[in-house]
Amino acid sequence: MAKLVECVPNFSEGRDNNIIEAIVEEVRKVKGAKLLDYSSDEDHNRTVVTFIGSPEPIKEAAFNLAKKAAELIDMTTHQGGHPRMGATDVVPFIPISDITMAECVQLAREVGQKMGEELNIPIYFYEEAATKPDRKNLADVRKGQYEGFFEKIKDDNWKPDFGPQEMNAKSGATAVGARVPLIAYNVNLGTHDIEIANQIAKKVRFLGGGLRYAKGMGVKLEERNIVQVSMNLVNYEKTAIYTAFEMVKMEAKRYGVPVIGSEVIGLVPMKSLIDCAEYYLQIENFSMDQILEKRIVE
Amino acid sequence: MAKLVECVPNFSEGRDNNIIEAIVEEVRKVKGAKLLDYSSDEDHNRTVVTFIGSPEPIKEAAFNLAKKAAELIDMTTHQGGHPRMGATDVVPFIPISDITMAECVQLAREVGQKMGEELNIPIYFYEEAATKPDRKNLADVRKGQYEGFFEKIKDDNWKPDFGPQEMNAKSGATAVGARVPLIAYNVNLGTHDIEIANQIAKKVRFLGGGLRYAKGMGVKLEERNIVQVSMNLVNYEKTAIYTAFEMVKMEAKRYGVPVIGSEVIGLVPMKSLIDCAEYYLQIENFSMDQILEKRIVE
Repeated sequence: MAKLVECVPNFSEGRDNNIIEAIVEEVRKVKGAKLLDYSSDEDHNRTVVTFIGSPEPIKEAAFNLAKKAAELIDMTTHQGGHPRMGATDVVPFIPISDITMAECVQLAREVGQKMGEELNIPIYFYEEAATKPDRKNLADVRKGQYEGFFEKIKDDNWKPDFGPQEMNAKSGATAVGARVPLIAYNVNLGTHDIEIANQIAKKVRFLGGGLRYAKGMGVKLEERNIVQVSMNLVNYEKTAIYTAFEMVKMEAKRYGVPVIGSEVIGLVPMKSLIDCAEYYLQIENFSMDQILEKRIVE
Repeated sequence: MAKLVECVPNFSEGRDNNIIEAIVEEVRKVKGAKLLDYSSDEDHNRTVVTFIGSPEPIKEAAFNLAKKAAELIDMTTHQGGHPRMGATDVVPFIPISDITMAECVQLAREVGQKMGEELNIPIYFYEEAATKPDRKNLADVRKGQYEGFFEKIKDDNWKPDFGPQEMNAKSGATAVGARVPLIAYNVNLGTHDIEIANQIAKKVRFLGGGLRYAKGMGVKLEERNIVQVSMNLVNYEKTAIYTAFEMVKMEAKRYGVPVIGSEVIGLVPMKSLIDCAEYYLQIENFSMDQILEKRIVE
């Protein structure tokens, strides 16, 4: 199987369809980059684009999207409910298969450098691509937002990693990074008591002393008259799906509530589910190379 | 993800490396056909070749291998321990992903017809590609072997599906078919008593009244001083890996013996393990399209 990397850039435009389509079109133009999804939120005035492919086309597409966004989006007039610092607000690269995080960091660095130099945009590397510990967390990098960056960028501690050393008024600044894929995973409970789902979520999530890479909350499924523990697993290699599932089950016992099912929302890497099969079947010495589909003709 | 089909032809030559290499080379020559494995057995005087790819290149490679085998192997002098009826003895096509069994049957039919017409070899379709119920089982088709076919072929009930209506002395006859992939799966027991493994295998396998698509026997792992129930799952979509695992566990309880692990041998289709994750996690409404790798750029 070929190296596969996912890119999920966020743009500060969620209302003008002509602009949104023109940006998304840049993915379609690159052979080898496959558009998986894009969705816009008018309140947030923001669009999230998801595409996947091998490193070279993904690099090309990521840059071309940012270039188009720099042409078409003017941050001086931007308003929206979601925190943002630039026209191309954030560009994460996510390893999917047969590619290491280090390679994705390298990708982020190359795209960031090119954006800085050719588009004249201040670039900040974040998460796995961060150049300093206090740039790891995107929220910290983006703090102050577009409006605040005209000052923030002058702070010695917040000099951009690439690009101009002063703010780009039209395009703002961009965070470019590499991170593991996030899995949206919900466990359904045989009760309609939302308080029980909330209590379980609190025990399972990192904030409540639970699993390091799990976020969670209780959610009511009105139609089915049940509740669920809705989770985000932000590092499935360290906090596995089965771990989250078993921990919800364990906490549900306290209330005598049965776990009646679970849901995987959206796309997940194959390995995240194969890991679960390995766990429950107690498989010894399994290698992902034993998956026939991994042998696909390149 | 592209349509992926596997082909595992068996040839009646397992001793002469020049001939074996010349046949295998025909796979390497076809762009889009990927050689996964080949292995020869001198006692059996037989070679098994495994390759994978999308239908067109697999069709081309399968025919080219049979053509080369017809040139280089002379059945009039062939001797070996394994039942065989032709130089290219059997050619199964196996659906791996995004391809139906019906499409594999169609592939078998096309390759069989071409072999019959262009290589002048009597062709019998078997398993899912069989044209009559009594040709489904390969052992029934091959009964009498090469030597017996000179008479068998004259029987009205055993007229070839394609090709000449009389035996090809040099190349013999060939069975061409389509079948589901076979999974070799072993469950390890926390005991060194082979009798217990044998008893469990008897209960789990079809022959003993167990699972329809499971074969099994007890095997001793001398090095670890344990035993295992060694199984072949010949239709993982109907008799799943987790079903076999749970049934071994269930039977092991009778002896107070713990299941200490399991092994998947060789290649398995992704779906066979994803099915297990779905079962144990009680996942509702999962679609294989949610697997990121399925979205690979085509």
